[in-house]
Amino acid sequence: MKIVKGGVTKAKGFEAAGVEANIKYKGRTDMAIIFSKEPCVAAGTFTTNVAKAAPVTWDQKIVKEGKAAQAIIVNSGIANACTGAEGYGYCKDTADAAAKELGISADSVLLGSTGVIGKQLPIDRIQAGVKMLAEAKSDTVQAGTEAAKAIMTTDTCEKEIAVEIEIGGKTVTIGGMAKGSGMIHPNMCTMLSFITTDAAISKTALQKALSDDVNDTYNMISVDGDTSTNDTVLVIANGMAENEEIVEGTKEYEVFAEALHEINEYLAKKIAGDGEGATALFEVNVVGAQTKEQAVLLSKAIACSNLTKTAIAGHDANWGRIICAMGYSGAQFDPEKVDLFFESAAGKIQIAENGTAVDYSEEKATEILSQPIVTATANVKMGDAKATAWGCDLTHGYIEINADYRS
Amino acid sequence: MKIVKGGVTKAKGFEAAGVEANIKYKGRTDMAIIFSKEPCVAAGTFTTNVAKAAPVTWDQKIVKEGKAAQAIIVNSGIANACTGAEGYGYCKDTADAAAKELGISADSVLLGSTGVIGKQLPIDRIQAGVKMLAEAKSDTVQAGTEAAKAIMTTDTCEKEIAVEIEIGGKTVTIGGMAKGSGMIHPNMCTMLSFITTDAAISKTALQKALSDDVNDTYNMISVDGDTSTNDTVLVIANGMAENEEIVEGTKEYEVFAEALHEINEYLAKKIAGDGEGATALFEVNVVGAQTKEQAVLLSKAIACSNLTKTAIAGHDANWGRIICAMGYSGAQFDPEKVDLFFESAAGKIQIAENGTAVDYSEEKATEILSQPIVTATANVKMGDAKATAWGCDLTHGYIEINADYRS
Repeated sequence: MKIVKGGVTKAKGFEAAGVEANIKYKGRTDMAIIFSKEPCVAAGTFTTNVAKAAPVTWDQKIVKEGKAAQAIIVNSGIANACTGAEGYGYCKDTADAAAKELGISADSVLLGSTGVIGKQLPIDRIQAGVKMLAEAKSDTVQAGTEAAKAIMTTDTCEKEIAVEIEIGGKTVTIGGMAKGSGMIHPNMCTMLSFITTDAAISKTALQKALSDDVNDTYNMISVDGDTSTNDTVLVIANGMAENEEIVEGTKEYEVFAEALHEINEYLAKKIAGDGEGATALFEVNVVGAQTKEQAVLLSKAIACSNLTKTAIAGHDANWGRIICAMGYSGAQFDPEKVDLFFESAAGKIQIAENGTAVDYSEEKATEILSQPIVTATANVKMGDAKATAWGCDLTHGYIEINADYRS
Repeated sequence: MKIVKGGVTKAKGFEAAGVEANIKYKGRTDMAIIFSKEPCVAAGTFTTNVAKAAPVTWDQKIVKEGKAAQAIIVNSGIANACTGAEGYGYCKDTADAAAKELGISADSVLLGSTGVIGKQLPIDRIQAGVKMLAEAKSDTVQAGTEAAKAIMTTDTCEKEIAVEIEIGGKTVTIGGMAKGSGMIHPNMCTMLSFITTDAAISKTALQKALSDDVNDTYNMISVDGDTSTNDTVLVIANGMAENEEIVEGTKEYEVFAEALHEINEYLAKKIAGDGEGATALFEVNVVGAQTKEQAVLLSKAIACSNLTKTAIAGHDANWGRIICAMGYSGAQFDPEKVDLFFESAAGKIQIAENGTAVDYSEEKATEILSQPIVTATANVKMGDAKATAWGCDLTHGYIEINADYRS
């Protein structure tokens, strides 16, 4: 597997663009397209929130019915959630506009929206944006980056990655882009992540590879504990790498799944580290667990605790908050057996042994906790299972962004 | 039922005090005592956190074994949690010191601690503090207030209340004090709440009255979603009102339970409204639910969401975040049927009808949301069940307090 420069336009036959459609923001792009020259098989995972945004319902129908997909249209600024029948109607209007401009059928157009909940889309500007996107789309690496930028809301940087693998003597490329920042606590999938590949792969194999992997990647990140109405991960595969179709249970499937995991983990970590107001990516390993489920509960509780997150913001080795979070996670363990470690580019130290403090240097701990990537590892000494969760620190920036987000 | 001035010393036979024991803070009191002239029946509810603080384990044993209780000794500044066998030993040392000073047995001494996790108690100062408390204790209203002040950590005000009821021609008094502020997301009970009564009541009736009520009071509040290692509610009853002993299933029990509820709800709301950094008490009503469980899940999800809490901090009627929180609460409902209202001393307005925005004045909404007590009501139109949860807004103050709490 080789990581290469680029994102959603890196695989063969994909084009992208980002344009200023004036949906909510001024002076920046806010609509994006991903277009495939050939029809694609599509896989997706979506929010488990009962209040699903209109584009989530739209995409679920297309993915479920096994329709070929050929375009993804995304807007930032307005989430098209809690918008009722009117909001769903705008999904159809958007897809119809894209179908007309691109010469494809409306039910091959997937949609994504992110932004404020409860406002209706300005459909005339959306339709004008679709026309601009159809004209602007291109297969350059830069076009992929433009699309990744256009889907940002409070993100501070675009998030994209591409990898190349060999499948049956053919080079297969997978590229992805994502956005995160706030209302990030994915359950079955993340805010918005779009992945393109030129692999030839069966629909069931593509869906399985995605569904299996989201539990270890997007579902292990949290910015603020709020599971969005819009979480969506879509993978579309157009087969233009001309490899023999990948099916489940083969060595080729494993190679593909591993590459997809690389993409998903990279984007998930980028979303966590670029959480609203975050100054650090907070990585939490739980090792020595009896079961994977136990390790997941423990690691997520630590990564999601407002108190551990503010301690990371303060570069403060307030390790008792970690044991406390583990204690209310719902997992059973013996607090008096837990060993705790902090690690970063500045070094590694043990903080607690068998649930009580060891004699460590607070100065060294603060130095370690002042890095942009901070790792906490808890060993519960019950078995061999482990899990990793990713979060971020909770800072004044989060309050600033969210106490007056709509204005 | 009559609310009267006072707290834990209001009922007959109870004394209290707060002293400067120099546990962690300087220039303020940090140890408290509640003492009853007669032995008491005791009831308690405790944290469900797997990592229980040493004093929680100590109290659970005494309450479970049905020992008579006669004193409660509390320190603030250090939680005596994650302190292993050494920490539990200090519980015994504290109780021994109190037993000696007060002339009672060590297993009639209940304990409470609150503060930083993972540090050992300075036992010599604790023992000296116990001696000072034994000398300072008094049955005045002021002494109760001094005790309520001494248990505070980042609380901005003491929290106490007392009520009088008539039971079989006798006046029965119940008084309570509590502290909250951070790491508040009680599960079966709250941070620290101590209630005294001169009622004669059977132990099983006292425990039932408490256990039934915590689910509607302390368990419905949240400051930051972090369930503490130390949550404790204790009620001790010394029988000095000379009423006929209250037992379950009687009218007298109902009168007592109602008065206890008044105390618990008052203290729970005080804790929520005085959450770390809070500028507003955020009350969330869910009505029209199919079941109580559904109403509880929905109301707690709204009160606990970092995004709704930052919106309240910003006086911003960002109602989509409320629907979003309901959506991931785990409760089933139809988002497209939800009616939403905001209410405060400044008025009441409807924000959403059937899950989408109604035409309301943002100016009026901001005015309503700028009050110190803000109520959101969601009607899910499925039945007659309802629940109320209490939280607070999430502000820069919370970050300031917690990003560097230990220093």
